[in-house]
Amino acid sequence: MPWNLSEADIEMIAIGAGILGTGGGGNPYRGMIRAKGQLELGRTLTVVGLDELPDDALVVPMGGMGAPTISLEKIGRGDEGYVAVRELEEHLRVTVAATVPVEVGGSNSFAPLIAAGMLGIPTIDADGMGRAFPEGSMISFYFDGVAPSPSVMVDSQHQKIMLQGVPDTRSLERIMRNICVDLGGSAMVADAPITVARLRETAIPRTLTLAHHIGKAVVDAQQTGADPIAAVCTAAHGRVLFAGKVTDVDRRFERGYNFGRLQLDGLDAYRGGQAEIELQNEYLICRVDGEIVAIVPDLITLVDTDRGEPLTTEVVRYGLRATVIGIPAPPQLTTEQALRWVGPPAFGYDLPWTPFAPDLHYALE
Amino acid sequence: MPWNLSEADIEMIAIGAGILGTGGGGNPYRGMIRAKGQLELGRTLTVVGLDELPDDALVVPMGGMGAPTISLEKIGRGDEGYVAVRELEEHLRVTVAATVPVEVGGSNSFAPLIAAGMLGIPTIDADGMGRAFPEGSMISFYFDGVAPSPSVMVDSQHQKIMLQGVPDTRSLERIMRNICVDLGGSAMVADAPITVARLRETAIPRTLTLAHHIGKAVVDAQQTGADPIAAVCTAAHGRVLFAGKVTDVDRRFERGYNFGRLQLDGLDAYRGGQAEIELQNEYLICRVDGEIVAIVPDLITLVDTDRGEPLTTEVVRYGLRATVIGIPAPPQLTTEQALRWVGPPAFGYDLPWTPFAPDLHYALE
Repeated sequence: MPWNLSEADIEMIAIGAGILGTGGGGNPYRGMIRAKGQLELGRTLTVVGLDELPDDALVVPMGGMGAPTISLEKIGRGDEGYVAVRELEEHLRVTVAATVPVEVGGSNSFAPLIAAGMLGIPTIDADGMGRAFPEGSMISFYFDGVAPSPSVMVDSQHQKIMLQGVPDTRSLERIMRNICVDLGGSAMVADAPITVARLRETAIPRTLTLAHHIGKAVVDAQQTGADPIAAVCTAAHGRVLFAGKVTDVDRRFERGYNFGRLQLDGLDAYRGGQAEIELQNEYLICRVDGEIVAIVPDLITLVDTDRGEPLTTEVVRYGLRATVIGIPAPPQLTTEQALRWVGPPAFGYDLPWTPFAPDLHYALE
Repeated sequence: MPWNLSEADIEMIAIGAGILGTGGGGNPYRGMIRAKGQLELGRTLTVVGLDELPDDALVVPMGGMGAPTISLEKIGRGDEGYVAVRELEEHLRVTVAATVPVEVGGSNSFAPLIAAGMLGIPTIDADGMGRAFPEGSMISFYFDGVAPSPSVMVDSQHQKIMLQGVPDTRSLERIMRNICVDLGGSAMVADAPITVARLRETAIPRTLTLAHHIGKAVVDAQQTGADPIAAVCTAAHGRVLFAGKVTDVDRRFERGYNFGRLQLDGLDAYRGGQAEIELQNEYLICRVDGEIVAIVPDLITLVDTDRGEPLTTEVVRYGLRATVIGIPAPPQLTTEQALRWVGPPAFGYDLPWTPFAPDLHYALE
């Protein structure tokens, strides 16, 4: 049944998508404000399941591209996604039935909702990551390696760049990323429409619902005085990897991404310990006392220890009390094919993916 | 009257365009071979004057983008220009009546002829430079600074990139140049169609005819044993600036262009002298014994001393006997407006344009 988002739903999705975003996917607060603005304009943000549209309905995958630190400061115009879908419709002479997030993380859960709200169409309750990843080749719809064509980038000046015939997703990511840097480090990307039938085969389903579920758990815990960290772990099937204070943030803009690392000194049960987290837009590897405790594609997410709200890579800073939570990757990301695109080597690490140990001695329980 | 090019015409244009290309515009030999190939396939390469088409006929400006050293080695597919025009026609739902070179230099005089031959339409006897320049912002059609929209880039893999809404020509050049580098350093560019009426206001007219005229003078001199250098000077209204032997070539690929400098030691009347020429794809400044004797936008061109044929920046090498010829820029390039786009500061030189001195003591006559 179509689900029309309320203001409260938007707030909950912002928290949950921020947590699933593992530090990236764009600033959730920014996305939330934009989405609420659509409701204020009288528009409807509607979410539908993959089973609610016909097989041949055309869906445009979309999301913001850039580095989180840039997209926080370079404020978009708000209608970039709408313009991109219209451009695809006109160029291809088709009618688009829905949008779908390429990643559920951060503000990128809202980008397709906002475009769809302006177009008067729904957004599909699914995405291409079940989290956020930094590169366009890391979207499950394209794990066959074939690049979408056309893809359209639109920036806040309505500069529109359409790419066709790029043979593979890594080339497309490379070309688009450089264009994105030329456009100032942040732009909206909409890919060629794909059918609902194809999405059913390739998407990670019900991830907007999951984001909402996680966000609701956090809000409920805040309101009842329960432990928000435990609420996140239960709702997201995650475990605490570490808790402490952020003691160092090394974060730089390079080749169109944010790269860097965080350090945390342990507090409470983790006193005396140290954690280090490496990032490329998203948190990729968490080491505790030098030992890897979680590695991409498993989700490593940072939340405010007191409130359970996400600490994304662009806002994390010295002195914050943060809890690192590990969440097992959705099974669609850990197939042999998927790991070629989203396993540690895809990020330049000569390391295997070692699934997140259930008996991790750092876990709270 | 429409002019259908013969094989001999193509050979003459190759020589003349190479000379007008001032070192750049793409390898003339490569362009000539491609153009002759069209005749062998039974196609017609037709040149028409600006007065032979109606005011509202739509013309696509085009040319290869890249660094001369790259485009010599990265052999194109041959139909990139055709694909680019078709893409513009489909996207804009218009019919294109003709093509026009953005620059007459080197192989770029042939690129629009080849595309037009495949499309069954003519090419206009005019261009946007009367020579070659390295940047897309240096085309006379766009001296108002407004970027064409859309512009399409097509490479040898049929990767197609369409840019719309880029506000100004310098931004467009910057974005396109970076894309060009990502595509391997060479691609065909076709710009939004413009009307014949607008071309009459902005183009440098009859430059294919001029290239042919210069090339014919060289061929005639070669066949009759006359001095080919004098023939070039007469046909192009140029003067010899220096003659000698190339003693050093410093040429590198940087940011999508070739940059560098040549040195020549004088021979014959110039014995004991030294010349230095700086280049960005094209020859920009010629100094003789440390003194500037010609500077962009005036044409500085290098020809083989024995045969009068062009020595472009990608083929010039140590030991060649070369004559440097200066040719006054067409008046369309030396207005106050034009000099903002093609004067020395546009190339990063803090130097004024000093028109090519008629009483230059280095001149032969």
